[in-house]
Amino acid sequence: MSSTAAPGTGSGPATPAGDGPAGQVPGGRRGLWSVDDHLADVLGAIQPLDPIDLPLSDALGCVLVQDVTVTVALPPFDNSSMDGYAVRVADIARAGEDAPAVLTVVGDIAAGSGEARTVGPGQAARIMTGAPLPPGAEAVVPVEWTDGGTGGGPATAMRPAGAAPQGATGEVRVYRPAAPGAHVRGRGSDARAGDLALPAGTVLGPPQIGLLAAIGRGTVRVRPRPRVVVLSTGSELVQPGEKLGAGRIYDSNSFALTAAAREAGAIAYRVGAVTDDADELRATIEDQLIRADLLVTTGGVSVGAYDVVKEALSAAAEDEPGADEPGAEEPGDEERGGGVGPGGRPRPAGGVDFRRLAMQPGKPQGFGTIGPDRTPLLALPGNPVSSYVSFELFVRPAIRALMGLEDVHRPRVRAELRTDEALTSPEGRRQFLRGAYDAEKGTVAPVGGSGSHLVAALARANALIVVPEGTTTVEPGTETEVVLLG
Amino acid sequence: MSSTAAPGTGSGPATPAGDGPAGQVPGGRRGLWSVDDHLADVLGAIQPLDPIDLPLSDALGCVLVQDVTVTVALPPFDNSSMDGYAVRVADIARAGEDAPAVLTVVGDIAAGSGEARTVGPGQAARIMTGAPLPPGAEAVVPVEWTDGGTGGGPATAMRPAGAAPQGATGEVRVYRPAAPGAHVRGRGSDARAGDLALPAGTVLGPPQIGLLAAIGRGTVRVRPRPRVVVLSTGSELVQPGEKLGAGRIYDSNSFALTAAAREAGAIAYRVGAVTDDADELRATIEDQLIRADLLVTTGGVSVGAYDVVKEALSAAAEDEPGADEPGAEEPGDEERGGGVGPGGRPRPAGGVDFRRLAMQPGKPQGFGTIGPDRTPLLALPGNPVSSYVSFELFVRPAIRALMGLEDVHRPRVRAELRTDEALTSPEGRRQFLRGAYDAEKGTVAPVGGSGSHLVAALARANALIVVPEGTTTVEPGTETEVVLLG
Repeated sequence: MSSTAAPGTGSGPATPAGDGPAGQVPGGRRGLWSVDDHLADVLGAIQPLDPIDLPLSDALGCVLVQDVTVTVALPPFDNSSMDGYAVRVADIARAGEDAPAVLTVVGDIAAGSGEARTVGPGQAARIMTGAPLPPGAEAVVPVEWTDGGTGGGPATAMRPAGAAPQGATGEVRVYRPAAPGAHVRGRGSDARAGDLALPAGTVLGPPQIGLLAAIGRGTVRVRPRPRVVVLSTGSELVQPGEKLGAGRIYDSNSFALTAAAREAGAIAYRVGAVTDDADELRATIEDQLIRADLLVTTGGVSVGAYDVVKEALSAAAEDEPGADEPGAEEPGDEERGGGVGPGGRPRPAGGVDFRRLAMQPGKPQGFGTIGPDRTPLLALPGNPVSSYVSFELFVRPAIRALMGLEDVHRPRVRAELRTDEALTSPEGRRQFLRGAYDAEKGTVAPVGGSGSHLVAALARANALIVVPEGTTTVEPGTETEVVLLG
Repeated sequence: MSSTAAPGTGSGPATPAGDGPAGQVPGGRRGLWSVDDHLADVLGAIQPLDPIDLPLSDALGCVLVQDVTVTVALPPFDNSSMDGYAVRVADIARAGEDAPAVLTVVGDIAAGSGEARTVGPGQAARIMTGAPLPPGAEAVVPVEWTDGGTGGGPATAMRPAGAAPQGATGEVRVYRPAAPGAHVRGRGSDARAGDLALPAGTVLGPPQIGLLAAIGRGTVRVRPRPRVVVLSTGSELVQPGEKLGAGRIYDSNSFALTAAAREAGAIAYRVGAVTDDADELRATIEDQLIRADLLVTTGGVSVGAYDVVKEALSAAAEDEPGADEPGAEEPGDEERGGGVGPGGRPRPAGGVDFRRLAMQPGKPQGFGTIGPDRTPLLALPGNPVSSYVSFELFVRPAIRALMGLEDVHRPRVRAELRTDEALTSPEGRRQFLRGAYDAEKGTVAPVGGSGSHLVAALARANALIVVPEGTTTVEPGTETEVVLLG
């Protein structure tokens, strides 16, 4: 039996951003943030997008921000649930197969008819499904209970009105009695004016869209889909389809993460790979801010000499002009950052904090806000598997939080580990291995190794196997936690 | 434990279209088609769309039509998995915390570097994650195992190259030995040239898109998303947001089904409601054919005098000029139709067959092909619940079959019925009641009644409760079949 996930898994409650004990680096002495602390920091800084009025046709998948009440009763008037004849029940009380009631047909009521003639004693009106019950009538007898006005015995259908206009006149034989209200849908029997149609927070799927249309709502106030800009960094990156030079690789992250952002519900824009030049990166990001509710970068966040995202965007770089100078970077310096830095200093208003997570893959991560609107930015590591796993764990929840969804996480289940050899995991890190989950059997098998460059294996996985921080070996047959992807 | 559904449920194997016993009407004497027979007829007539080459960015969710093999090894060259120093292992074999190996730094290798200097005995090259291993080097030592060239003890990071260009020269102290190949990702260790990257039939999710990008594919041959045109019929229909006149209701079907088609993976176009005029409907459909891979109509398929879809599109109307004339429609006439009509006559090449299904809701249905390209058309009943349930059971699988997906059906599970009173269902009909499924408890409760106008209840449901044809009463606590929606 599957269960929807709690955000954290195992390693204690997350420290809300800016709410941690002053002077204490999240994650403790080694400067490593826990997965949960980082996630809490991200989600704590994300506000759902401001609501807008959208045409109903554009609101699929969006979250309603206010209760919608019914203003027009559903259905708005008593109407027929069958094609047949509207009658007075006394007239057909004794009708039978051998003794049909013979009624005078006084007209035709199509769906959409306005004023209808009153049905008097001994009379009937031919009526279509959805058409308003005429005054005087108390029930509808289906056409199959009549001769359809043909005089030729029980009917199975009416003739098309265009071909047989005389069907709305003459006589009809009714072979069965009907109770008052039979085959009549009463006004308001589905919903009454003033009823709550949908509460705030409802995610609009097709049936909810249908209900809003049915009660006459042409537009609806929802949180829009977030616009997510994805850019990859790295002077080694080549656009797929182009020629690959020596020492170069194809850019895959921006394609994979743009697709993943779309799947998460975002309107995603892929920006071509940016080279490892801090000025170029800053300029590109500045250009993109206009259309971004969230920015995602990949690469350049680690400890290398060309880690451009870190160089261009780090909070330290903005706050401390001297940080660029030789000698300003000391061992331990990168432990700084986060919602609360050493000394309890709150995160700078603009700028991105780079931190190391107790996680594999995905150790180096950046998070912060940028630009005049404080647009959130997640800087993911550049290895393809690291960036994808980071997206699943941090960006996808952020996108869904922007949408105002309550359930921002992938479902998690427990499954029996199927593997020939025990899995090994580094001490103190939460490991996310790619796995093939079998729902029928309740099992999961590792796919490929732990290398963060194994994109071919990633493409064969449908789950992430979670190995907790305190666990270094997982024996075959162990029940393990699994994050279900896609 | 949930399971993916088999297409049919319970009532025997489906009769493939055009393959039934000659002279036998599917469903037998009463002229009712089973749900399974109708579904088999629809799916039997649907061909997956012809494949096209799509840019990778547009291929999310599409199905690959040919095997994709790896042409460039992944990774394409031996490269570093860490930021650090490329070394010869003999030079650092006896390195220790107190006795570091001191190597001459001969240069800097950033990711994307082409030709690199050979690393000779006693030398090292500073190297970044993803950068090609230089000639002569056998392993990489992470920067954290060195002094980072600072002479100041173990380092935690490199200085940004822009700020500290001298990092690529001078000396570096290495505090630990490394084995050959340490922190090196070998060429082809993820995938080798000639390997099968993805087999035909793969559904392209984000990781698969990423893999295709990684091996340099800028475009990919897939089946496109089907273009689905949805139109509702009925003179009573008013566009949401406009004023509702007497006897009129808002058009909800076209909104709900367009949304549902999008959710199923289609590119969906909503056409405004068409009045009950056969010529107007034919003209509208003709106009829409140009952009339709599949047409869906709602309303006008039953036995009423204004059932315009049936009037405008029925195969009989096209085949038999006399069918429009009075007297041509006899009792039992509507039993005709389907893949094999009475007398084993195959379905007319163009035209839509209207039939009754042993189903509630959704008894009247039409299916066929139309126009010069034999575009498939499903004509659904007009009641909102009927049309939505019909969409789920027949149109969604059709859309997914057009996409070339193998798994076209919603998942089905078994759940315990939670209800105060027994459910009742008409004899001989397969009933689909709206339900609220609780995955945690494995239970399902009916939501609203069986009325096919109850759209408010539909909007609170997440499942359909299936009551088989032979069952007329379902007691509380019974294990029942449930179709999971959304």
